[in-house]
Amino acid sequence: MKSDGTMVNAFVAGQAQLSAEETRMVERRQKLLGPAYRLFYQHPLHIVQGQDVWLHAADGRKYLDAYNNVASVGHCHPHVVAAIAKQAAILSTNTRYLGDAILDYAERLIATMPDALQHVMFTCTGSEANDLAVRLSRDFTGNEGFIVTNNAYHGVTDAVSAMSPSLGPGVPLGKNVRTVPAPFGDGSAFAAGVEAAIADLARAGVKPAALMVDTIFSSDGVFADPAGFLTGAVEAVRRAGGVFIADEVQAGFGRTGDGMWGFMRHGLVPELVSLGKPMGNGYPVAGLVMQPKIVAGFGARARYFNTFGGNSVAIAAASAVLDVIENQGLIENARQVGAYFLEGIKSLGAPQMGEVRGKGLFVGVDIVRDGVDDGAQAQRIVNGLRDAGILISATGPRGHSLKIRPPLTFTAQHAELFVSQLGKVMRNTLA
Amino acid sequence: MKSDGTMVNAFVAGQAQLSAEETRMVERRQKLLGPAYRLFYQHPLHIVQGQDVWLHAADGRKYLDAYNNVASVGHCHPHVVAAIAKQAAILSTNTRYLGDAILDYAERLIATMPDALQHVMFTCTGSEANDLAVRLSRDFTGNEGFIVTNNAYHGVTDAVSAMSPSLGPGVPLGKNVRTVPAPFGDGSAFAAGVEAAIADLARAGVKPAALMVDTIFSSDGVFADPAGFLTGAVEAVRRAGGVFIADEVQAGFGRTGDGMWGFMRHGLVPELVSLGKPMGNGYPVAGLVMQPKIVAGFGARARYFNTFGGNSVAIAAASAVLDVIENQGLIENARQVGAYFLEGIKSLGAPQMGEVRGKGLFVGVDIVRDGVDDGAQAQRIVNGLRDAGILISATGPRGHSLKIRPPLTFTAQHAELFVSQLGKVMRNTLA
Repeated sequence: MKSDGTMVNAFVAGQAQLSAEETRMVERRQKLLGPAYRLFYQHPLHIVQGQDVWLHAADGRKYLDAYNNVASVGHCHPHVVAAIAKQAAILSTNTRYLGDAILDYAERLIATMPDALQHVMFTCTGSEANDLAVRLSRDFTGNEGFIVTNNAYHGVTDAVSAMSPSLGPGVPLGKNVRTVPAPFGDGSAFAAGVEAAIADLARAGVKPAALMVDTIFSSDGVFADPAGFLTGAVEAVRRAGGVFIADEVQAGFGRTGDGMWGFMRHGLVPELVSLGKPMGNGYPVAGLVMQPKIVAGFGARARYFNTFGGNSVAIAAASAVLDVIENQGLIENARQVGAYFLEGIKSLGAPQMGEVRGKGLFVGVDIVRDGVDDGAQAQRIVNGLRDAGILISATGPRGHSLKIRPPLTFTAQHAELFVSQLGKVMRNTLA
Repeated sequence: MKSDGTMVNAFVAGQAQLSAEETRMVERRQKLLGPAYRLFYQHPLHIVQGQDVWLHAADGRKYLDAYNNVASVGHCHPHVVAAIAKQAAILSTNTRYLGDAILDYAERLIATMPDALQHVMFTCTGSEANDLAVRLSRDFTGNEGFIVTNNAYHGVTDAVSAMSPSLGPGVPLGKNVRTVPAPFGDGSAFAAGVEAAIADLARAGVKPAALMVDTIFSSDGVFADPAGFLTGAVEAVRRAGGVFIADEVQAGFGRTGDGMWGFMRHGLVPELVSLGKPMGNGYPVAGLVMQPKIVAGFGARARYFNTFGGNSVAIAAASAVLDVIENQGLIENARQVGAYFLEGIKSLGAPQMGEVRGKGLFVGVDIVRDGVDDGAQAQRIVNGLRDAGILISATGPRGHSLKIRPPLTFTAQHAELFVSQLGKVMRNTLA
C-alpha cells in the first residue's frame, strides 16, 4: 500500500482491455468474494499451473516468476509435493498427541538459530505468528507499546494489522503503536527514531513491549545494508524494557543468501523470531521461535493450541522444504545468483533507475524521474514486465521501488533473461 | 478450560506410569516446544496413523475416535487426500490471480446458506475467521463492545483470545467484552443476559458491535435445544446496534444432522458466519461468510489478503470435503446415527449420568454425584474410555460434561461399541 491509501500493483477495472472470459471472472469474484479482495496487474493473470520458477497461464503463456516468495524452493517442488501427499494419506492430526516428527523438525529448525533461541511454537500463518509474538512480548514485559517502521507490514489479524501502516489509512494503527522511518545508512538515524518513539510512548504513559521489524524491510522498500544497522535501535528498546521481534516471514529460510535468517547478518539475537510464507512452500505453516524466558510465565498461567498449527502434514511439508534448501544448496545459490542478478540489474544503468538494493534473491530498484520517486513509472515497468512474461511487483511508501523476489532456485540464465527483459521494458517505458 | 484455570483433560506429569520412550518424548516436547503446549490424557497417546474413525497408536492399539471433529469426513479420506495430492502437484498459489476453482467453491458454499449471506472471505484458521469477524463487525457498526458466553472459546489471536473465557484467568478478557450464561430452556434467560450485558457496556459508554456464539455451545457444555432459543438475544443485540456472528467452527458442515449450519435450526440469518476446523478435513482452510453490507465500507477503504487463505490446494481440499458430505449422505448419517447414539447413551441410565444433550453427532453428557457437577469423575471416565480404546474429552466450566464428537462417518455399529464401552467404564468408575 502506498501512503495515499491505494494498493501498489492492484488491478483497477477499466485500465486494460479484458477478454469476455476475464471480465466474467472479475465480476464473479466481486460478487462471491466481495470488495476487500484485490488482483495483481492492470491486466490480471489467470494462472493454471506452476513449475519451479514458471507460472503457466490459461492462454498458454508462461511467466518467469520473480515475485512469489511462498513457493521459495520452486512451484510444486516434487520432493515437497510427495511429502505432503504421503503424509496426508497416513495421518493429519494435531499437537495434543505425542509424535516424533514435529520434535525432529523443531530440533532441526532451532539448530539454524543462535543458542539462546530454544523453543518453537507452530501456527498456520505469519500473521498468527506475529500476533502470538505480540501477546507473548506484552505478557513478558508487562508493557503495551509497539514500534514498527513507517510502511511496515506484519499481517492481517486485528492486533498486527494495527501495526501495519502499509495497509493504508483505512486500517487504523493501534493507540500504543508508534512508527519510525526505515533504516538508511549506518543505523544511527534509525536508532534515534526508535529513541524518539520510546520517548513519545513515555509521554502517553506507555512503555515499549517490543520493536518489531521485517529484517529485509520488504514493504518499506528493501533495506539490507550495511549489516549491523539494527544494533543501536535494538539496544535502545531493550534499555526501555522492550524486546526485539525479528519478523522473518520475508527474509527467512535462506533468501538473503548469507544464512538462514535475515537478523543474523546484523549480529543480533532477537527474543522472538516469526516465520511464515516460505516455510512450507505453500502449505499453510508458520511458527514463532523464542528465548525460553519469553514464554515461561505465559506457559505457567495459560496455554496455546492452534488446531492446524504444526499438524502432521504441515510438519512433513516444512521438513521437506528444509531438505530441499540443504540438498540443492539454495542458500549458496541465493548468494551467488543473487549477487550476479544484482550486478546485472545495476549494469543496465537505465536513466530511470535510482538506488538498486538487495541481498541474495531479494532486490529493490528505486524508479525516479528528475530526482523524484516515480511510483507511476514503476507501475508501468511492473505491467510492462508482465506483458513481457516476467512477474514482479513494486513496494515502498510511494510504490516506486521494484520488488524482485524470485524462488531460490533462480539460475544465472533466469537472471540474464530477467535483466534483458527489464532493459527492454525500461527503454520502452521511457519512450 | 475449567473456571479454575486448568485445562480439561490435560496431561499432568506424574499421574500415570509412562514408558521410557514416552517419558523421553514428553521431555523433548517440553524442551523444544516450551511450556505453553498441552497433551491430552493422563497417559498421552502416541498416534501414528489415521483411517476413517480409527486412530492407530505406536504400540499397535487402535482407538475409536469420537472426539476429533477436524477429520470430519473420516481420517485420511481417500477422496480428500487425492484432491490435495493432485492439486499440490499442479499449482498452489494465492487469490491475487484469477481462477475458477475458488469461485466455484465459493458459489457452492454460499448456496448452502440463506440468501442474504452472499460473500465469502478465506482464511487459514477459525481463529483468523473470527478475528476478521471482529474487525468487520466493529468497522460496520462503529461500535466496540462484544458479548460472548461465560465459557466461550473463539480462538487464539490476540483479539479473539480476549473473547474466550474458556482459556482461563491466565488470558485476560478485553475491556469491552462482556460474558453471559450459556442458554438453558427457551432462551428468555439468555436474552435477558444479553440485555444485561448491553446495559453494562452502555454504563461504560460502549455500544455492542456483536454477539458472537458458537451455535452448539461446545465449550459451554453443548446446548442445542430447543431450536429457536437464540432469537431473543439476537434481536436484543440488533436493537442496540450490534450484529450476530455465528461461529460455526464446531457446529458447521453438517455435524448437527439437520442441515449444514448450526444457526439454521434457530431460524436466524446471521450477519457473519465463521467456518473452520472440518472445512478441509485437516488441511488448514477456514472462512467467513457475510452479508454484503458488512464489508461494503471496509472493502472501499481497505483490503484483506491472507497469503495461504483460499490457496489452490486449500480450495481443492475444501471442495473434496463438500463432495464427500454430499456423496456419502453425511448430514443424513449424522441425523440418523446421532439420534440412535444419543438414545443409546441415555439408555445406559448410569447413576452418575445427569443431562444428556446433543444434536446429530455432537453429544454432551453431564456427570454428577449427589446432584453436584463432578468434573473429577468426568476425567476418570474420559481416561477410562481411552484405556478401553475410545477417544473423547470433557468440557464445560467445571469440566463435568463429556464431549463426544466423532467423525460424521460414524456408523450404528461404532455407536453400539461406544455405548457398550461407556457402560463398562461408568460401572468401573463408580466402583
